[in-house]
Amino acid sequence: MYPVVPGHEIAGIVKEIGSNVQRFKVGDHVGVGTFVDSCRDCEYCDDKLEVHCLKQCVGTFNAVDVDGTITKGGYSNSIVVQERYCYTIPESYPLASAAPLLCAGITVYTPMMRHKMNQAGKSLGVIGLGGLGHMAVKFGKAFGLNVTVLSTSISKREEALTLLGANKFVISSDQEQMAAVAKSLDFIIDTASGDHPFDPYLSLLKTSGVLVLVGAPSEVKFSALSLLHGRRTVSGSATGGTKETQEMINFCAAHGIHPNIEVVPIQYANEALERMIKSDVKYRFVIDIENSLK
Amino acid sequence: MYPVVPGHEIAGIVKEIGSNVQRFKVGDHVGVGTFVDSCRDCEYCDDKLEVHCLKQCVGTFNAVDVDGTITKGGYSNSIVVQERYCYTIPESYPLASAAPLLCAGITVYTPMMRHKMNQAGKSLGVIGLGGLGHMAVKFGKAFGLNVTVLSTSISKREEALTLLGANKFVISSDQEQMAAVAKSLDFIIDTASGDHPFDPYLSLLKTSGVLVLVGAPSEVKFSALSLLHGRRTVSGSATGGTKETQEMINFCAAHGIHPNIEVVPIQYANEALERMIKSDVKYRFVIDIENSLK
Repeated sequence: MYPVVPGHEIAGIVKEIGSNVQRFKVGDHVGVGTFVDSCRDCEYCDDKLEVHCLKQCVGTFNAVDVDGTITKGGYSNSIVVQERYCYTIPESYPLASAAPLLCAGITVYTPMMRHKMNQAGKSLGVIGLGGLGHMAVKFGKAFGLNVTVLSTSISKREEALTLLGANKFVISSDQEQMAAVAKSLDFIIDTASGDHPFDPYLSLLKTSGVLVLVGAPSEVKFSALSLLHGRRTVSGSATGGTKETQEMINFCAAHGIHPNIEVVPIQYANEALERMIKSDVKYRFVIDIENSLK
Repeated sequence: MYPVVPGHEIAGIVKEIGSNVQRFKVGDHVGVGTFVDSCRDCEYCDDKLEVHCLKQCVGTFNAVDVDGTITKGGYSNSIVVQERYCYTIPESYPLASAAPLLCAGITVYTPMMRHKMNQAGKSLGVIGLGGLGHMAVKFGKAFGLNVTVLSTSISKREEALTLLGANKFVISSDQEQMAAVAKSLDFIIDTASGDHPFDPYLSLLKTSGVLVLVGAPSEVKFSALSLLHGRRTVSGSATGGTKETQEMINFCAAHGIHPNIEVVPIQYANEALERMIKSDVKYRFVIDIENSLK
């Protein structure tokens, strides 16, 4: 298994199947995302939007399961999961790369699809270049968007433009640079989890522009006029449901989109966590369980 | 002419037409909304969304016109307007009632259409019961929505339920009443211009719910989780363009939707303004110019 640190999402190979399993067989490459169960009976489950289950879905890691035990995520040799919450990973797609798709990937893909950010020629701003942000840039490029990375750190410039192929890089604290791209963006994906001002970013949106929040700052605060002028929108998003997650995996396989990862042994997990906190990873740690947890 | 206090929107009868005018003839009932010109050449003007004109549209009242003069709005015996910015008022629709449609009406109609709030059976919350709010209730009922009025004032209860036909009335400062309607609304139109908290209102939205801001509080502030949970949306809106304004007028005529107004003589304008500031009007003052300005 290949869990992403800190264990919420996993890719691996099917070792055994239950008697009623229909979609998978032993040896299949599969993934498990951020949730492993839901009520399977509400309107959101019916729409394959299980992450919004009215009875709340069961998180893959550190959540209370239906039997009262605590879910352990990917920090184990194997995991038992109901097939509905497993995804098919195409054989050609590296398993280690597949794992981060199941949280970082779907978290940015879902709002991009929902808000129609897949229209070639439109412009996308990405706030923050971490695990989520770098996937947003990759999806943006695959959709044919003009991608601007907005960052507080000049050190991200080279990787944004060269490594990820963004079209523009803007230091968000530089008022002159920000003014130069005012009202130029159709969409913004805001992956920053630290507190930050919103008005400067909203001013970059064209009329009808949409900013989607996928990070979790403690507070969102802006002037009403930032939304009234140009009827702009701020929307939130969590991860996606099972239907869209499978579509996203297939899209990544078809378009050769791979998250940038650092594969580490299980013995490195604590150090990886420490480095994660310091944002010292490009862009996700993936643990190689099979070759390190004996 | 029937200007609405304070003069931004007008209904009246055509007295004279220019040689190139094609859509109107003398005697036609017409309206003029909150803007009287725009560049007529940008992408928004091309889409008949002139209120978002890239060169900024010219306001009907107290704005700088293309010739440098200040526009006077409806405080006059007559007004000269380019035909593009005039609307046809059906003969059967009272002119005095038509005037408030052209600001209050379109300001709530536009976001309702944009955010698909015209799906019968869905639920709408309306924050604030003034000129805009009472029109939102009327449109909501005409669209077949289940309408809840959210107000800080118990004095609005009777008019909300009996006069306007809202389905529910909730005192927004009453936590128990608010908790009883948690996650029950598909949409909210927020017409409150005074500062107010947003988290309590956002908690009333279902998954994928939308709150549209049409008032202008000094600040919008809420917890990121209020948007992330249930991927909720906050969107702003100004008034609408010429195409949608005409559609809204036709909709009101077809469905017998009339704003509640108090018709007053021009001599009453100052007192009307003072009463407006105290929210002492149900729900719009309309001046009868012809019978009072001699």
